[in-house]
Parts: sequence; structure tokens; C-alpha cells
Amino acid sequence: MKRTLGVCYYPEHWPEEMWADDARRMVETGLSWVRIGEFAWQRMEPSRGTFDWGWLDRAVETLGSADLKIIMGTPTATPPRWLVDEMPDMLPVDADGRVRKFGSRRHYDFSHQGYRKECQRIVRLMGERYGANPHIAAWQIDNEYDCHDTALSYSDAALTGFRDWLAQRYQSTDAMNRAWGNVFWSMDYDHFDQIELPNLTVTEPNPAHVLAFRRYSSDQVVAFNKVQADELRKHTDAPLIHNYMGRVTTFDHWAVGKDLDIASWDSYPIGFLSDRIEGTPEEKQYFLRQGHPDNQAFHHDLYRAVGKGRMWVMEQQPGPVNWAPYNPAPLPGMARLWAWEAFAHGAETVCYFRWRQAPWAQEQMHAGLLRPDNENAPAQTEARQVADEIAGLANVGTADAPVALVFDYESAWAWDTQPQGADFDMFRLAFAAYRALRSLGVDIDIISPETSDLSDYNLVLAPGIIKLSEGFRSALKTYKGIALIGPRTDTKTEELSIPSPMGPNLSNTDVTAILAESIPPTDFIALENGGGFRHWFEHLDGDAAVYRKTEGGLPALMGNDHVRCLAGWPDDETFRSLLSDILKETGVETMDMPQGLRTRCTKTHRFVFNYAPESISWNGTEIPPAGVHWEEL
Amino acid sequence: MKRTLGVCYYPEHWPEEMWADDARRMVETGLSWVRIGEFAWQRMEPSRGTFDWGWLDRAVETLGSADLKIIMGTPTATPPRWLVDEMPDMLPVDADGRVRKFGSRRHYDFSHQGYRKECQRIVRLMGERYGANPHIAAWQIDNEYDCHDTALSYSDAALTGFRDWLAQRYQSTDAMNRAWGNVFWSMDYDHFDQIELPNLTVTEPNPAHVLAFRRYSSDQVVAFNKVQADELRKHTDAPLIHNYMGRVTTFDHWAVGKDLDIASWDSYPIGFLSDRIEGTPEEKQYFLRQGHPDNQAFHHDLYRAVGKGRMWVMEQQPGPVNWAPYNPAPLPGMARLWAWEAFAHGAETVCYFRWRQAPWAQEQMHAGLLRPDNENAPAQTEARQVADEIAGLANVGTADAPVALVFDYESAWAWDTQPQGADFDMFRLAFAAYRALRSLGVDIDIISPETSDLSDYNLVLAPGIIKLSEGFRSALKTYKGIALIGPRTDTKTEELSIPSPMGPNLSNTDVTAILAESIPPTDFIALENGGGFRHWFEHLDGDAAVYRKTEGGLPALMGNDHVRCLAGWPDDETFRSLLSDILKETGVETMDMPQGLRTRCTKTHRFVFNYAPESISWNGTEIPPAGVHWEEL
Amino acid sequence: MKRTLGVCYYPEHWPEEMWADDARRMVETGLSWVRIGEFAWQRMEPSRGTFDWGWLDRAVETLGSADLKIIMGTPTATPPRWLVDEMPDMLPVDADGRVRKFGSRRHYDFSHQGYRKECQRIVRLMGERYGANPHIAAWQIDNEYDCHDTALSYSDAALTGFRDWLAQRYQSTDAMNRAWGNVFWSMDYDHFDQIELPNLTVTEPNPAHVLAFRRYSSDQVVAFNKVQADELRKHTDAPLIHNYMGRVTTFDHWAVGKDLDIASWDSYPIGFLSDRIEGTPEEKQYFLRQGHPDNQAFHHDLYRAVGKGRMWVMEQQPGPVNWAPYNPAPLPGMARLWAWEAFAHGAETVCYFRWRQAPWAQEQMHAGLLRPDNENAPAQTEARQVADEIAGLANVGTADAPVALVFDYESAWAWDTQPQGADFDMFRLAFAAYRALRSLGVDIDIISPETSDLSDYNLVLAPGIIKLSEGFRSALKTYKGIALIGPRTDTKTEELSIPSPMGPNLSNTDVTAILAESIPPTDFIALENGGGFRHWFEHLDGDAAVYRKTEGGLPALMGNDHVRCLAGWPDDETFRSLLSDILKETGVETMDMPQGLRTRCTKTHRFVFNYAPESISWNGTEIPPAGVHWEEL
Ligand SMILES: [Zn+2]
Ligand SMILES: [Zn+2]
Ligand SMILES: [Zn+2]
Repeated sequence: MKRTLGVCYYPEHWPEEMWADDARRMVETGLSWVRIGEFAWQRMEPSRGTFDWGWLDRAVETLGSADLKIIMGTPTATPPRWLVDEMPDMLPVDADGRVRKFGSRRHYDFSHQGYRKECQRIVRLMGERYGANPHIAAWQIDNEYDCHDTALSYSDAALTGFRDWLAQRYQSTDAMNRAWGNVFWSMDYDHFDQIELPNLTVTEPNPAHVLAFRRYSSDQVVAFNKVQADELRKHTDAPLIHNYMGRVTTFDHWAVGKDLDIASWDSYPIGFLSDRIEGTPEEKQYFLRQGHPDNQAFHHDLYRAVGKGRMWVMEQQPGPVNWAPYNPAPLPGMARLWAWEAFAHGAETVCYFRWRQAPWAQEQMHAGLLRPDNENAPAQTEARQVADEIAGLANVGTADAPVALVFDYESAWAWDTQPQGADFDMFRLAFAAYRALRSLGVDIDIISPETSDLSDYNLVLAPGIIKLSEGFRSALKTYKGIALIGPRTDTKTEELSIPSPMGPNLSNTDVTAILAESIPPTDFIALENGGGFRHWFEHLDGDAAVYRKTEGGLPALMGNDHVRCLAGWPDDETFRSLLSDILKETGVETMDMPQGLRTRCTKTHRFVFNYAPESISWNGTEIPPAGVHWEEL
Repeated sequence: MKRTLGVCYYPEHWPEEMWADDARRMVETGLSWVRIGEFAWQRMEPSRGTFDWGWLDRAVETLGSADLKIIMGTPTATPPRWLVDEMPDMLPVDADGRVRKFGSRRHYDFSHQGYRKECQRIVRLMGERYGANPHIAAWQIDNEYDCHDTALSYSDAALTGFRDWLAQRYQSTDAMNRAWGNVFWSMDYDHFDQIELPNLTVTEPNPAHVLAFRRYSSDQVVAFNKVQADELRKHTDAPLIHNYMGRVTTFDHWAVGKDLDIASWDSYPIGFLSDRIEGTPEEKQYFLRQGHPDNQAFHHDLYRAVGKGRMWVMEQQPGPVNWAPYNPAPLPGMARLWAWEAFAHGAETVCYFRWRQAPWAQEQMHAGLLRPDNENAPAQTEARQVADEIAGLANVGTADAPVALVFDYESAWAWDTQPQGADFDMFRLAFAAYRALRSLGVDIDIISPETSDLSDYNLVLAPGIIKLSEGFRSALKTYKGIALIGPRTDTKTEELSIPSPMGPNLSNTDVTAILAESIPPTDFIALENGGGFRHWFEHLDGDAAVYRKTEGGLPALMGNDHVRCLAGWPDDETFRSLLSDILKETGVETMDMPQGLRTRCTKTHRFVFNYAPESISWNGTEIPPAGVHWEEL
Repeated sequence: MKRTLGVCYYPEHWPEEMWADDARRMVETGLSWVRIGEFAWQRMEPSRGTFDWGWLDRAVETLGSADLKIIMGTPTATPPRWLVDEMPDMLPVDADGRVRKFGSRRHYDFSHQGYRKECQRIVRLMGERYGANPHIAAWQIDNEYDCHDTALSYSDAALTGFRDWLAQRYQSTDAMNRAWGNVFWSMDYDHFDQIELPNLTVTEPNPAHVLAFRRYSSDQVVAFNKVQADELRKHTDAPLIHNYMGRVTTFDHWAVGKDLDIASWDSYPIGFLSDRIEGTPEEKQYFLRQGHPDNQAFHHDLYRAVGKGRMWVMEQQPGPVNWAPYNPAPLPGMARLWAWEAFAHGAETVCYFRWRQAPWAQEQMHAGLLRPDNENAPAQTEARQVADEIAGLANVGTADAPVALVFDYESAWAWDTQPQGADFDMFRLAFAAYRALRSLGVDIDIISPETSDLSDYNLVLAPGIIKLSEGFRSALKTYKGIALIGPRTDTKTEELSIPSPMGPNLSNTDVTAILAESIPPTDFIALENGGGFRHWFEHLDGDAAVYRKTEGGLPALMGNDHVRCLAGWPDDETFRSLLSDILKETGVETMDMPQGLRTRCTKTHRFVFNYAPESISWNGTEIPPAGVHWEEL
């Protein structure tokens, strides 16, 4: 399949007489796709039962007849005011117990059954009207689940749903009390109606209580999405998509992904660097106008897996955004680089967000391909260039990766609930492993914790997985590559308690984490022969061979030819050198990538991306800042 | 007019037998004015309709007959408990929705109509009783509007008032929806009763919604003040004053000032340095016991304009205060320096706060001219010295300033609402411009954004003005000096959206800010030939001449002989050198003022103030720390 | 009396078939005591009036018959869910007005009379059943009062109680208004029902109002404890104990201590270093796995006094805990060192917390003497070693200390209420004095502010005491040693106002603090001949001799042969040198203790503890990290 470009567009924001010209300019820019409709519920249904489809019909026709394929968004992220007036208890409630009011977006509670019905209703109506429309080539359901921390709500609707969910999961409070260890601190319940949401307790609530609520909350997102997906399937054969947000771990993307056809995500490299990626001030300054060089790749690889091989970028940052603490402009060329990087990682389509900068409301300072005065903005030229380059280059395909990294949402919830050390964070740990691999120039697949066939990979990493799945555990028994387990992997039960015997519990590998230390940023567990651990260190015990030791003589890496347990969280340099050694052992070729230079192979080409603000030489080729280089394999 | 000194006094705090001696000592100290009455509502009216004027009559008589002129304060900043019991919904509500309780001061909601009536009632009674009293030479209305963040309240009273205000402003929700761009995110309203206060929304509310609420809230302060002013005018010819607080931008001082005769402010140089002025730790330590050398001057110049030429310091810090994070004592001499600086900037009167330190309640650690044990505190001696010096020196007058700086409250609200960069703050930007000018030794007027005659000034600065007024815009057309516009000036509409064509929109000057970047403290936009921008950088486009460029080749300063647009926020050194060049161009003489040394001219003298903790040499004169030097022009 | 070891145990957490083996292993480990029962209310009374004492009877019998002495805990820190359902208003309320929900522990309001009755009921039932049981050798009442900030609650129960308490204290609102200075800001009350809790006021409430609420709240803790103590006295002759927490100053431990027989505390050196002790990052890293070398000693000395000579450590950290921001493991040997240090400071018993690490619930990551899989954890070996050493060493006794330090809870509340400088904290000041003394190798008693006989001490320190007690004041008159008063001592009245004449008011010593400065961390008041003050500096006046001056010539230390007033808060080095001089003057021998090395004498031995992570030489003996050295006196 050929890679394509698209753009997000809001016809309802602009006079109808501008639409045709907009469509023409989109095509001129080389765009094939246009996303519309999400956020427009009020314009579709200005009041209960009164519909205005005319403008949308005409927009679809205008865009479609210009040869643009349309992604139609369901507008459920922005229920109109009249609907909130009808059911005010659909509003979410924050952890402090405050109702989160109407006046922006995502003002709904995933647990609210009445709102789900309303979503089904509007989606049914849209499906009936546009499901068979030939211009509609894909559907987007809702918009950025959990954005603005909306996956968790402490509402009455959530409370009711949670009690019911608990009753179904545990069947009796006795079973639940035992599973949670409620005997501790006399926390036992006699009936499910006594259970409250785990906020505002005097001190931390039982972690099993919190984890149950996190599971429940994720299940609501899955169910909310499935209501719409099921409804749309009745009316359309077009692929169903959701646009996930960056570094969101509050719901199980694997589970949501099962009900959809394509996983897309919204890529804001500069905003994310500023507001959700760890880094020293020096690193953040170095990459200020480019974004973190591994963050986009990580999400591409993650969502390619969530989408079962089909991945899009639904929103691509084109210039300064409005929502980060500081919002500098991208380095010239980055709007091109980001698109090519997405393609190299398997994206089918990259849509820039948005066509024309809106002159009012919350995102008026968010750049688009056009300026608010309808002139071209810098990213328009870069999009045009990408479109030309796509045309000139065969389909890039997606290379097989020799390395896999397990990423697990339940583990993220578990460590959120019980970090034990203030900076233990699942994403951060997985991303540290990913960065180390990327700095060695290898291609990576991110895989689900349920994966039970590892045979395609020379190396599999499973850091911080609360409990290995039975499929994964049994795959390890016959695995011929090297599996790097830990730190903190397989050390808890399903209910976030300590298993007996203590974990990890691996056949053929006698290693047990008998004691865990979390350590502050001032501390460092040095290893023999250099390097060391930060954040986390487990004392490993057992008969397995010791591959590395700490300077204090404790095991740092134990295991055997095929399974190794890592006792701590290596710092960047240590992670890189450790993985470099293991990769050599498994026969995977590595490259020392300079800071800022990153590579990804397709079936036919090696792509090299320069995220640095200065030019870097690569095998004799000088790659300018924001430069993309490719060469045939 | 001769400059005078005064003091704030609370006869109700002290046994009546002390009053006469206090009056005598005030006169001995050289004071002419005494402010009383504010905060004493409960002593005037201990319960609904029961009055005790006797003590106040006697206090007025005792003080007045000692030849002190009295400023009578209306006590509306501290409604008594019984009044709050009668109307509990008069209490303000914070942005988290929590009622702000009785037990300190300023516990009222500016929107509450019932409380406004009560204020009118008590002011009428005071006016009737004291309006014609010859000892009462001025009136102060209320006390420090907005102190403790009280200008904004999220109460039911505010909600009701806001909806009504919106209905009157927009006449229809359609008009309002269009003005705000509510089509974005389906935020349209069908009737005004659906609109809520813009707090606790899921993510940021529509900036136009917030700005409307900020305008509404400011209007309530203006209306609240006007009720009292109108009432007092019926009973007295004495001038009406309000004592504004430092760095308060939540209401429009220009509008409040129109209803009053004199603008006064409460000057706490050391407290303000600590809790509301940006600065490096080194600067803050250097000026720890003196205050920021430009902060008092800025407020003097601002309030001189707000008072239409008449400015007082109603409260002058005399020693340590109680309310800042840390409260060191002033350097010996500062209580004198601050008074002289106020006079040099045009103050008619400087009142020290307070006469005698109170032994109990919230401000018991706030110094006075006397200690709580009735001994003289250090500031008493310094006040005495100032009084002698006033006597020995002719009236200082106020010099005409060659430079004007526009200061606009609406812009402050606009950038609070939509900073786009975490440290964009209107006051901070204006103060940066002011500091740069002061470091060049020039006298400055601060002017209202409505100013339409600029002909008195060689240089006018208008940084960060959301939208130029029509008067100002048209004054620019024929202006013969140099107007320095920007950064971020005239880039928005009245409704905080992006205008078409994009701004700034200046006749004869083709410059457009086509893209804005906010940048973190780690970043710096370097200019060719030195210096650079911090915080903010706009990409300027147009046919106007480029005066300065960034190292990257983008325009940094564009314009023509009379209007120049600044593309970014210069750091201190750059601002200084840039203004130095422009001042030379306009024929204004500048001086390189060393750190800590500041100057201001009166009609007849140049005054020089040493804010440094060490002596500094000035044209051969050694000025000691906290020293004041003056020489005839 | 022989020193003994014990452990905290939760039979209800484990299958009954494990109990006998647990008991056997406890005895093998050398333990004499086992604490049980606290937190088990739900297991004793699963629903209102339905009791299950059987398991507890059998646990007592199993443990007791293994020759373990039992400390029986009352379970009132964890009321069961059914009880909360009966009286939901027993839940505490935080300062933001939010109910603190069921789901962890300490979910009760000290003011709730209904809950007090329930506590009395369960304690009566336990007393009746176990009061005469020969295995029960001590009782613990509740658990860690105020842990999780539970001493202060802003509930309706607290409001009702507070109003009643005020009515009884002041008898009339007139008297209260005068005492508080409510004339200030028109804050007078007409009847007690108008008074609210001092939270959520517009700006800070009257400090006298806050202090009254702090006194009231402390009184409720005392009364809550007394209800249980009185009830238990009816049924048992065994000593009554409470286990206080580290650095808790919210209630008057002296007052609670009067109703009990032994003061115990819960010692978590590593957790406390991390979350409640001031220190530079370097110090915190140096002592990361040992805890602050003076913190345990301070609490031992404090609680020895609170217990009127009888002190225990009821919970001793054995390994990593779960609740601090970071939770590293102790250095090998520390679990032994901490026990020996407690004994050297007079502890009768040290109980490790807990026997076996629980596999679930909040504290599952809190180490014990056994691992969750029932293997020995490292601390088990160290406990065994201590048990052997106790056996081999005669009773260590407790030495008489030549130096006393006054510690006062009312002062802690006063300065919390009115710090005047952001880092003025009573504990911090007292601990600074204590650290300086300890660095000089002297033994210290901590004494109550009511102490009226100082004759046993060569030196008495009374820093930061809001108002000297009459007993202490009069003891000073004839004191033959040196009393070091200040900074900030005796400068306020009982009602937290400034006395007349201003303080301190000492007979024979004419010193007055006429002005106070709080200063930021960047400032330093240098003294002549070196050293200086931080945080706080008072200007002292009077006829007394000046012993030390600041570089600016102001008095730094004034007084006479027996009473000295310190004008500021010396930094560590200055405090040490100042006290070194004074100790020499009083004839107390001092030693220069290296960082990390600390000493305490018993009647017969000098003990030396190495808190440093490296070995230190002491009079020719090399003491390894975590080493304990003792030598006969
Ligand atoms: Zn988006
Ligand atoms: Zn004031
Ligand atoms: Zn405990």
C-alpha cells in the first residue's frame, strides 16, 4: 500500500463558500485524506431530536468530489449543552470530589449508562446517513480517550458501576476481602454497597482496591468504545479507528484495539517533550524544536501493534501548539521528518492537525497548515514536499524487527498504585529500555504481555511486568533467543500482592527477588566494571548464574543462556552497554547512533533521521538538522 | 502644594486615655494626616441598627483638635459577623468552589447586591455624621480592593450577575456564540442561564468565556466603589481616595480612578520584593532590606496617572511586615528614602502604616512608628527627619517625563487567560520595559491605553497591549516621536481572538506577527550584534524596514521613523541597550545608572536614591546605602 | 531491669496452624515480647454485638505458653466498616472541608463523642476478657495518634466541641474578643455559636483563634486517650502504653503521658530521614541507609521524659519500609545499632515491626524479621545478635545528663500558627540545638516546659518557648548553671499576643527583644569572630552584658553569669562552637564527634555508634559502618 497524507478539517468553523477552495488547496498540497465531524454534535443536533445534517452532507460532497477520502469522526467527545442539561450526572468528577463542568471538552463519565445510550443513538444516526457514502473511507470513534485525565472519574455513576463490577468479579465480599487482604487494618466489607471509590481515604487505600478501580475504569473505556464500534459495524464496512494520545496508560489499549481496525495516534513531538517526557534541562533544550528523538518512534511501534499491523498518525503537529507550558516553533523540516519517520515505522497515513488555524476558542494559538488569515503556514510547504517524495518512492513497507519489548497497561496501573519509589513509572521504564535499544540502531517491535510466540525475535525485553502471562511464561520455556526479564517483573499476583513462592517464577531459571529497594536520585548502585542502577534495585537470590555484580557483590544480572533477570533499573549508558553485549550474543548487529540520529528500516530501505539541531555525518553522508536520509538495503 | 506626612491609626485598638498623647506625638513627629475608621464597622454598629458613634466622635475631635487632618475610611472591607449571619451568601467563593469564611477580612463578594446596599447604608450614615466635619479632610473608600485575591469570586451571586451581564453585552446567545467561537468543541449555548462560571471545566474553558468573566468581575469592583463614591459625594466635598495594592491587575484601575479624586497605594517594598516581584536569588538578596529599586517608582508613576495627577502613599512600610514569606527589617534610612522617592514621583502625602504596632491579631508582627510597648520604633526617627527636610525644601513639584509607557488591565486579563507561555505576564513585561528605562535615568509617565494624544512624549512604549485603542492607533498616524510597539501588541480582537487581517494593524507600517513562539527559560533567541529575546518571540512579516535581526536572520525590530515593532521580549541588558539607542534617536538624554542607583527629577531638582546596600559614587558625590541625594536642576 | 526485645505480630493475618511455629521462632530469635491486637476490631466484633474472641484467646494462649509476654493493643485506630455505617459523621474532615473516607486507617474524629463511647465499649470488653490474663504484660492504647495528620479535623463534631470548649475557657464572648484582639478587622463575636473553625478564611485567621483550635484539638487527643486508660485501669494492673510517632507535635505528649505508664515510639530512621528531617541532599545521601544520626536519640530522650523515665521503642524499622518517597534497605548492622542506641538512651524494650512481611494490603512492601515466604530476612539475624549481646552485658541503666533541653508543644502550635518566617519550626529549632549538643558528645535530657527544678543540670536550653512557665521562670532566679534562652523565647502571652512589657521577662536579666527579623535562606547575619545566624534574628535591648555581637554591632548574646539570651538561630557550626564555649564555662566535658559518630553513656558504659557509611576511628578503636562500640566508664 502507498503511504498517504491527510489533514484534520472543521467545515463548521468556516463559511461554506470557503469549502471548495479549501478542498482544492488540500489536493494541491498532496493530501488524500480529510478528517471531519468529531466535535460537531451541536451542529448536527442543535437541540434534542432536531437535526441539521444539510451542512455536513454538503461538506462531505464538496470534499469527496474533490477526490479527498473522508474520515468521519463521531462527535461523542463533545456532548452539547442541552444534553448535559438533561443528564447533569453525566459529568465526570475529579479525585477531590469536584464535578468537572461543561465548557471545554471530554465532559462525560465513561461509566454513565445514559450517556452511552446517547452516543449509540447519535452514532446510529450518523451510520445510517453516512455508513454507505462512498466518500467516507474510514471512521474515527470519539477523540483521544483519557485526554485531560478523563479515564478516571469519581462520580456516583462510577461508584454504582464499580460495585456491580466487583460483585461480578468476586461473587462474594468474603472472596474479595481475602483477595485484597482486607483483614489488614480491619478493612473487611460485609456487602458490596459498602465499598467506596478509592479516593480521599485518610492514608493510602488498599492497593488491591485501587487496582480494581483502575481495571474497572479501563473496562468502561473499552465498553464505551465497543458500543460505538458495534453500532458502526451495522452500517459501514469502512475501517474503524480511534486516535490515541501520547503516553496515556490509564486504559488498556490492547483491549480497545481488539474492537477496531486501525490504531492511530496524535503526535505532538514538541508539546510532549515539554509536558510528558523525562529529561534533563540540557536534553530538553537540545531537542526543544524537534521533540524527543525516541518518543515518536516508541508510539509508532506501540500503536502499530495495538492496530494489529495497521497504524496511522491521525494528528501531526505542524507548528507551535497552544497547550504545553512553552510552545516554540518546530525547526524547519521537522514537519517533514516526523511524517517520514511515521512512514518508516509503518504508518499508512499521516494527517496534519489542522488545516487552517482557528481564530478563536481554546486552540487559536495552535498552528495549522494554513494561517488564520488563510495564507500558507510553513508546514504546508513541508507537507507538499512529503507528498512529492511519497510519489517518487516505492511503498516503504515495514521491516521485521529482531527485538521485542513487552508493554503492559495493567503493570502501569499496578506501579501507579504502588510505586514504592517516587519515580517508578511503567512508561518511563519501558521507554528507557526502548531508548537504549534505539541508540544501538536496532528495529523494535512492541508486543502485548499476552504474546505467547516469541520465536521471531532474537531478544525480548519484559521490564516491570507485574505478572507474566501464562502464554509468555510458557513461551520462555522453549525460547531460543535471550529474554531479559526485570527489573520488578513477575513479582506480584493478579491482585497486586506478593506471590508464594516469591517471584519471578520462571521454569529452568532459579532466581527470586527477595528484597526491593527504591532509591532517590542522589543514589546510584554501581556495578563491577562500570555502570550502575538508578531508581530501583532488587536483591536477587537463587542458583542461577550471576552474569554481572554490583560493586557490593550482589547479583545485578542472573540467569542462563536464554533467560536473564536484571536486578535494577540501569541508567542510560549502562542500559545501552548491557543491551549491546546481549545483542551481540544473539547475533543482532548494532550501530552506535550519535545523540539525535535515529534509524529505522523498512523492507527495502534504511531511513536515518536527524533530530539534532546541527548536522551530523552518517557513513560519509552529512545529514542536516531535521534531515531525513534513506538508502536502499 | 507642600508635601506632607501622615500615619494610619486605630483609636478603637487603644484605651481612650492614650489618644491625646498619641495625637501630640504624631504632631511632634511632624505628621499632618491621620487615617482612621476603616475596619471599625463592628465598633460603629455592634448589632443591626444599634450604633456607637461616640468613640469615633471623640477620636475625631481629639485628633482634629491636635491639628491633624483626618482621612476617614469606610469600613466595608470588614463587615461584622452579625451582617454575615444575616446574609451568608455574601461570602466569596474560591475557584475550587469553597466558600471563603468569616474570620479575617475582605470576606465579601463584589457581586452581592445585598451587601452593596449595606455598604451604601453605612457610608450614608458616616457621610451624614462626618461629611461636613472640618477635621475630616479626605475619605478613603474600602481598603485594598482585591487584596487576598478577592476580586474574583465563583459564587452564586457572581453567576447570576455574570449571566445578566452577558445578556446585556451580547443581547443574544447567537451573538455570544459567534463572538466566542463556541462552534469549536460544540460549546454553543441556547440561553444565558446555561452559562456557568469558567472554573472547574475539564480542560481550559474558552478564553473568551474567561475574559468575559474577568471583565464582568472588574466591572463589579468599579460598581461597588461607585456606590460608595456617589453616596459620599452627597455629604462631603473632601476628596475621595482608594488605597490600591501593589501589583494588582485583576480590575481596571483606570475605571475605578475615574470615580475618585486621588489615587493612593500601599507601599511595602520589602514584602513585595519577596512575594510578588520576579528576580534571581542574588538580586533578591542584594535588595533584601531595601526592596526592588524600580517597583515603588513604577507604582508611583502608575497611580499618579490613575489619580489624574494626584497620588498618595496611603500605607508606607516602616519596618518588618508580617505577611511575606520572610520579613527582614529595612536597612536604616529606607523609611526615609521611600518617602522621598514617593515625593519625587509626585506623591502629595505619605502615610506610614501604622502608628503603633498592635500587640494581637493577624498583624501583631507588623512594625509601626511605635513599638507595641509605646516606645519609638526606628522608623519614627526617620519620619521625623523627613518632616524636617520637607520643611526645609521647597515643594518638589513633578517633572514632565519624556517617555510614556502604556499599561492596560484588559491586556493583563487577556494574557492571564491565554498566556501561551508559562511566564508571559503583562505586569512582568511592562515592568521589564520600565526597569530598562529607569536604568537609563529617564523620567517616565505611565499612561492609559485610551490615551489619544502622545505629542508630549519623545518615546512611547506599548508592550503587550492586546488591541490598540482607536484613539491610540490614530495618534500613531501623526506621531513625531518613536512609538515602540510589541511584543504581542495588537494581535487580538476585543473578544480575544485573532483578527483578520492579523495584527498589529498600523497605518503606514506594514508589519504582521504571523507566528508566535513562547520559549522556556533555557532558550534564548540571540540577535545579531548581541543581546536577545527570552520568553516570547514573534515572527514578523511585512514591507517595513528591518532594524535588527536575530542570528537566524528573522526580523527582531521592524518599522519606520516613528513606529517600531519589537518581535520579542528582550532580556534586561538587551532592553536597556535597545532603548538607549532609540532614546538617543529621539533626543532624550540618558545616563548609565549603576545597579541600585535610581533617579527622578522634579520641576526644580534631580533626586538620586541609593537602593544598594553599599555606598555608590554619583558624579563625585558618595551616596551612602539608603541615601537620598538631591541637587538643583 | 534487663533490656528486652520484642516484635509486632498479627495472628489474624496468618493461618492458625502457623502460630505455634511463629512463637517458637520468636523465642529462638531471642524475643521476649509480642504485640498483638491493634487493628483487629473487625475480627473481634465482625458485626455490632457479634463477637469472635476465640481466635484471640487461642493466639494469646499459644504465644503466652511459648513464654512470650504479650502487649495487647486496643483496636481503636481501625473502626470497622459497620461502625462507620452506623455513625458516618465520625469520619474526620480535612482543612479543605473534604470528608476523609473509610478504606485505610485512623478514620475517626477525636471530637466525636459517639465514637469515644464505642472505644470505651470495646476496651471494656477487652479489659474484662484479658485484663487479668497472666500472659498480657502490657497494653497499648490505639496506635500512633496523629499519624496521617489526624489530630486536626474540621468536622461538625469538632466545631460543636470547639464552641463548647471556648465557652468554658472564656465564659463570655467579650472576654474572648478581648483576649484575641478581635477588635482588629471587626472580628468580634456576639455568641459562641458564631465561631467557626479557623480554616478556609479569606486570609489568615486571627492567630489566637488558630491557637485556641490547636489547644482544643490537643485536648481531644488527651481526652480520647484518657477514656481508654481509665477503662483499662478498672481491669488490669499491667502498664499502659501509647506508641507515639516521630516528629509529631500536634498534641501535647506531656499531657497524654500523664495518663500512661510508659511512653513508646515508632522508630523508622530511614523513612524519617527521607520524609520529615531537614537536610542538604548531600547529608541525606550520606545517611541514606542509616537515618539521621541524631533523630533517634532525640526521640529516645524526649519519650524517656514523656514516659517519666520509662521508654520503649514499640516499632523498630527492620528493613525497607513502604511509605517514604524512596525506600532503600538499611546498611547491614543498622537494625542492631538502632536497638543498642535505644537501650543506651534508656529503652526498656525494643520491638521490631513486624514479625513477617504481609503479602498484601498497604504495607506489603514493608520488611519484617521474616520475608513473606517465611524465610528469615536480614534483620532477624541482627535481632538474634542483639539478644545474645543483651544476655552477655549487664543492664545498661541510664546515665544522668548534665544538659537539659526544654521541648514545648504549645510553642510548636504557636509558631505553626504564626511562623513569621517560612522556615520557623519549633521541632527544627529544638533539633538544631540538640544536634549541636550531640556533636559535642554530651548526654542530654529533654524536659517539659513546666519543669521547675533545674538544679540537676549544668546547662539548660530553652529555645523558642512561647512563654516561660512560672515554675521555670522562678527556677531561673536561683539557678546556678547557665540557662540559654532564645531565640524567640518568652516573647508572647498565653493568647499569642505581645506582652507588655515586651519579653523575655526575666528577673535579674534586663534583655528585651524589641524587633524580630525572619530571613530567607540566602541571608546570613554574621557574628563578630565568626559564625552567624540563619532564619531568625531578634534585636535585643537592655542593660545586660553583651557576650557576642553581630558584625553590624548588634547584640547576638546577652545576659549574665546564669542566664543568657540568644538573639538568633545559629547555623550548625555556630551553634556547636557557641555551646562548646558555654559547656566549658559550666564545667561539662565535651568531645568533638566526627560526622556520623555519636555517643551516649549509661550508668556503667560509654556507647559509641557509627552512623557513617564508612569506618571511623574512635580513641584508637576502628568502628565499622553501622558499628556499635562500648567501653566501661
Ligand atoms: Zn487532538
Ligand atoms: Zn494595608
Ligand atoms: Zn506503625
